Amino acid sequence: MTQRYRVTVAYDGTDFAGFQVQPKQRTVQGTLEKALTKMSKGAYIQVYGSGRTDSGVHAMGQVVHFDYPSELPAKSMLRALNSLLPLDMEVVDSQLADDDFHARFSTVGKRYMYRVDLGHYTNPFKRRYTGHYPYPIDVERIKAALSDVMGTHDYTSFAAAGGVIKDKVRTIYEATVVYNEAENELIFEFHGNGFLYNMVRILVATLLEIGNGRRDVHDFLRLYEVKDRQQARSTAPASGLYLKEVYYK
Amino acid sequence: MTQRYRVTVAYDGTDFAGFQVQPKQRTVQGTLEKALTKMSKGAYIQVYGSGRTDSGVHAMGQVVHFDYPSELPAKSMLRALNSLLPLDMEVVDSQLADDDFHARFSTVGKRYMYRVDLGHYTNPFKRRYTGHYPYPIDVERIKAALSDVMGTHDYTSFAAAGGVIKDKVRTIYEATVVYNEAENELIFEFHGNGFLYNMVRILVATLLEIGNGRRDVHDFLRLYEVKDRQQARSTAPASGLYLKEVYYK
Repeated sequence: MTQRYRVTVAYDGTDFAGFQVQPKQRTVQGTLEKALTKMSKGAYIQVYGSGRTDSGVHAMGQVVHFDYPSELPAKSMLRALNSLLPLDMEVVDSQLADDDFHARFSTVGKRYMYRVDLGHYTNPFKRRYTGHYPYPIDVERIKAALSDVMGTHDYTSFAAAGGVIKDKVRTIYEATVVYNEAENELIFEFHGNGFLYNMVRILVATLLEIGNGRRDVHDFLRLYEVKDRQQARSTAPASGLYLKEVYYK
Repeated sequence: MTQRYRVTVAYDGTDFAGFQVQPKQRTVQGTLEKALTKMSKGAYIQVYGSGRTDSGVHAMGQVVHFDYPSELPAKSMLRALNSLLPLDMEVVDSQLADDDFHARFSTVGKRYMYRVDLGHYTNPFKRRYTGHYPYPIDVERIKAALSDVMGTHDYTSFAAAGGVIKDKVRTIYEATVVYNEAENELIFEFHGNGFLYNMVRILVATLLEIGNGRRDVHDFLRLYEVKDRQQARSTAPASGLYLKEVYYK
């Protein structure tokens, strides 16, 4: 008998080679599995995430599931994991889950945040936690473009090569930007039913080019039509991206 | 002919072995001197700081001075240094200075900030930038104690061993604490005419013990009297400490 757990983790992605286990690399999945293996006295416990995050990408609310060989109260699981995990990872929630819950296949949506530091030089305290765009920005132009980002579109122009997924149609329920004056930062949020490989980072890079006047305000409408990754050239750096929340039914 | 520059630098202290040059260590002074030596085509240029910061201590406004072999406009000095410095250090201001300006001997005061994360577990995004105190805190007790911290006192009980300075009397003009609810953080600020070795970190550790009820609210009055470092036992970690501003006449 095993018990399935649904666990929410936050991590500073800077020093992880992404979520997925890779030989000889420090990964989020690998670090969680190592802690669980220690708890279960050596039995390997596989961890399934809601999706991969790339090297350097952060999470405030990544969700994983795994089957544990004995039934521990959910709170004890949280405490035990936090006592074993390194300081750049934290379990923020732990719940008992039904056997048909799957961190990846049960998702109905995700929310990403992207922070852009607009300061002239790289801020030493933000370099790990923001992208950096030291050029003039008209936030109103970005807001106008975000209304084109929302809705159901073919995002082929915004998917990095290498994905195996054929269907590039996704729905973005909400796409917002806020200018935080005290921090001189733009904070983007995107809530959608799914995101293609590097999609948020390509969306943000394109939105910044629109804000800077290098692209037409409504260039998204053209980019949806051409379905050509070469037309949306830039990808914003991983350091600004946060998986904020994963939604389930 | 040389020109003296007064330069303000910010740095994330985490990956520096403190301010002062040490053999085979990455230090703030050493990193600045290396950049200046590159600019001056190999001539060694010594950098003088307002004071040392320890390993892991941050600065938003550390002030240094140095004599440069040619007269560069102040803005060009800022730009040139920022193009050569690593991403965890930033020049935030640069000015031409008179020859009698000295970053250390001309100071009339300093302002330090200390951030304490009160979350139950170590927050992955804050571990480099805060101290961590996961115990109950009564902020009103700390505020009452801070009124004892202000003024002119003999801070012998709050100075780490190893300092060469005999006179331990200092004046604290302002000592405040703010509870930031959104971040679940305490933010301390101390403005004084000078600070002894580790003094802010020992003050903060003692204030947290008062806030937690482990010490009498007015224990500072006793600690000033006993002049005994063993009585103020704890030192808050370097990660929460920021040299915020250095004051000159």
